[in-house]
Amino acid sequence: MNHTYAVIMAGGGGTRLWPISRKKHPKHVLPLLGERTLFQSTLDRLDGFIPPERVYVVTTLEQEQELKAQALQIPIENFLIEPTPCGTASVIGLAAVVLAKRDPEGVMLVLPSDHFIRNRELFHLAMRVAVQVARKNYLVTLGITPTFPATGYGYIQRDATLPEKFDYPVYRVLHFTEKPDEAKARTILAGGDYSWNSGMFIWRSDRILDEFSRQMPDLKASLDRIGAAWGTSEQETVLRSVWTRLKPETIDYGIMEHAANVAVLPAGGLEWSDVGSWDSLFDVLLPDESGNVVVNGEHMPLETHNSLVYSSKKKLIVTIGVDDLIIIDSGDALLVCHRDRAQQVRRVIANLKISQREDYL
Amino acid sequence: MNHTYAVIMAGGGGTRLWPISRKKHPKHVLPLLGERTLFQSTLDRLDGFIPPERVYVVTTLEQEQELKAQALQIPIENFLIEPTPCGTASVIGLAAVVLAKRDPEGVMLVLPSDHFIRNRELFHLAMRVAVQVARKNYLVTLGITPTFPATGYGYIQRDATLPEKFDYPVYRVLHFTEKPDEAKARTILAGGDYSWNSGMFIWRSDRILDEFSRQMPDLKASLDRIGAAWGTSEQETVLRSVWTRLKPETIDYGIMEHAANVAVLPAGGLEWSDVGSWDSLFDVLLPDESGNVVVNGEHMPLETHNSLVYSSKKKLIVTIGVDDLIIIDSGDALLVCHRDRAQQVRRVIANLKISQREDYL
Repeated sequence: MNHTYAVIMAGGGGTRLWPISRKKHPKHVLPLLGERTLFQSTLDRLDGFIPPERVYVVTTLEQEQELKAQALQIPIENFLIEPTPCGTASVIGLAAVVLAKRDPEGVMLVLPSDHFIRNRELFHLAMRVAVQVARKNYLVTLGITPTFPATGYGYIQRDATLPEKFDYPVYRVLHFTEKPDEAKARTILAGGDYSWNSGMFIWRSDRILDEFSRQMPDLKASLDRIGAAWGTSEQETVLRSVWTRLKPETIDYGIMEHAANVAVLPAGGLEWSDVGSWDSLFDVLLPDESGNVVVNGEHMPLETHNSLVYSSKKKLIVTIGVDDLIIIDSGDALLVCHRDRAQQVRRVIANLKISQREDYL
Repeated sequence: MNHTYAVIMAGGGGTRLWPISRKKHPKHVLPLLGERTLFQSTLDRLDGFIPPERVYVVTTLEQEQELKAQALQIPIENFLIEPTPCGTASVIGLAAVVLAKRDPEGVMLVLPSDHFIRNRELFHLAMRVAVQVARKNYLVTLGITPTFPATGYGYIQRDATLPEKFDYPVYRVLHFTEKPDEAKARTILAGGDYSWNSGMFIWRSDRILDEFSRQMPDLKASLDRIGAAWGTSEQETVLRSVWTRLKPETIDYGIMEHAANVAVLPAGGLEWSDVGSWDSLFDVLLPDESGNVVVNGEHMPLETHNSLVYSSKKKLIVTIGVDDLIIIDSGDALLVCHRDRAQQVRRVIANLKISQREDYL
């Protein structure tokens, strides 16, 4: 058949978007950027590119109902449910096994459910080229052209362009670099031959399964057992029993870093964000002339600059004489955070866990 | 009889304490500083000094029920209700007329309902001395020793001490000064012979009524009509009909500035505040070692200094990397204000009035 499929990875959390993103309502199920949730926007982005019956969603038991309700166009059987969270290697392996049964030579686009991309046309172009590259048996990663020395992303260093000719420059990957410190990030940025690792991958299902066989044979054996039972009455029983014995691992560490024939397609101009923390919304949404962003709620700004305001309920938020603040009201909790400290929201989660404040997690 | 009476002035608003202080729930009826409201604390402060049956409360129709509910120990007939707000001269005149009928030589303590005083012993001492001075037919004002060049208060300049001997220094008043600008306030403070005008007055009822006769004869005539009807079946009818024709005036401008034999008792060390704006709570409540004050709500401060947090409901308030902030959550509205801009809350009220947002006033 040789079709193209999307696999939306929708099992994550988003602790730096507390207090809006919570265990039971993680970031991708929330309308953070407007009417549609990040998950729905990820699906919308595939409109005219991949039809809903070829879109798969991998998620957890806790999020299953919410995501199904948000994506009625996706067939029920395309929701793959992780019995327990077990890292991206297992999740992608599961999707590959299921897709390989349907269409062994099919190409799968692995896409996070919680990213923002403003330039949809460029995204489609990049994906079309990536699919062509994947058909040549490469493992393709979409690289994001860095705009600042980020310490929160992994990096991909590129080598020469691929020998084949495509409509967009595609490079052989020299190596993957884990999240660097500030100094290393500056060096990397100055080099000009690195992309951010977006977590978006494009490959043939059989090709990635071959890499699993080579690099993670134990996991591959487990996946084969799941594959054999898939579509039979044993499907759920086998999945659950196999899954509990898996060792959690990421696809980056488990497969990509030592895979053969890895290519990177460095996309500049996507206007991409992983919406990883509140300060990222300044890039994603468009600040007014004072630099302020109102995500939700009513804002009365007096002498207020470069500040972000979000209320989950109808509320008047008045700010006087403040700059560079992030103000997030979830109803039961309020965050007031300097823009430069947006990463520290993680510490809040840690504190809440230590003090066993489950109600706020 | 010659007793001492308290007249609590409880008709005001408190717009700079928005969004907690609202038209229907003005500042003195709120538990701003703990379990008890400012109004209740004002009554508590009279414990062991003036018995409840000699305490009068002057207020408005809107606030009557709330104040009665907060002060069950005060006899119902001691609540004097202004038909419409008409300035402190009329209010004090009404109380003086009512008291003069009960005890013409009695001394009345006129006390705002919404001030904070930490040093209750000194307050009692000052009041006892003030009553002695009032019995010598002076109009006595309690002066507050200035601690900074405030532009938000009127000032009282003192002359020589009174010829009579009292347990506390008491001075003849040279003159009253309206709220000065910053430069004038600095000059005043340097002079050392000024007090803040606290709005607390102590005098015999018949003595202040004589001043009304001399300086505000029209008001005095109206008050006499009310006095004549007081305690009869005509009381309410006459009060309402007279009141609607009164010209609003303050006691400071209408009487004090040109009164004869005015004395000031300058009280240092009262630890007084008029709780006029949110920043005043830093003086009234005791900040922790980081300079933070939590009035109400649960606060998780990370790298937070000199900030004030108040939530009217159970709420977790997390602050990260912020200094000198005032954060006030009333449920339907949220104020985040730099400490130096606390006076600007007035502008919020003005904006809300212009845009006819009655729900937030």
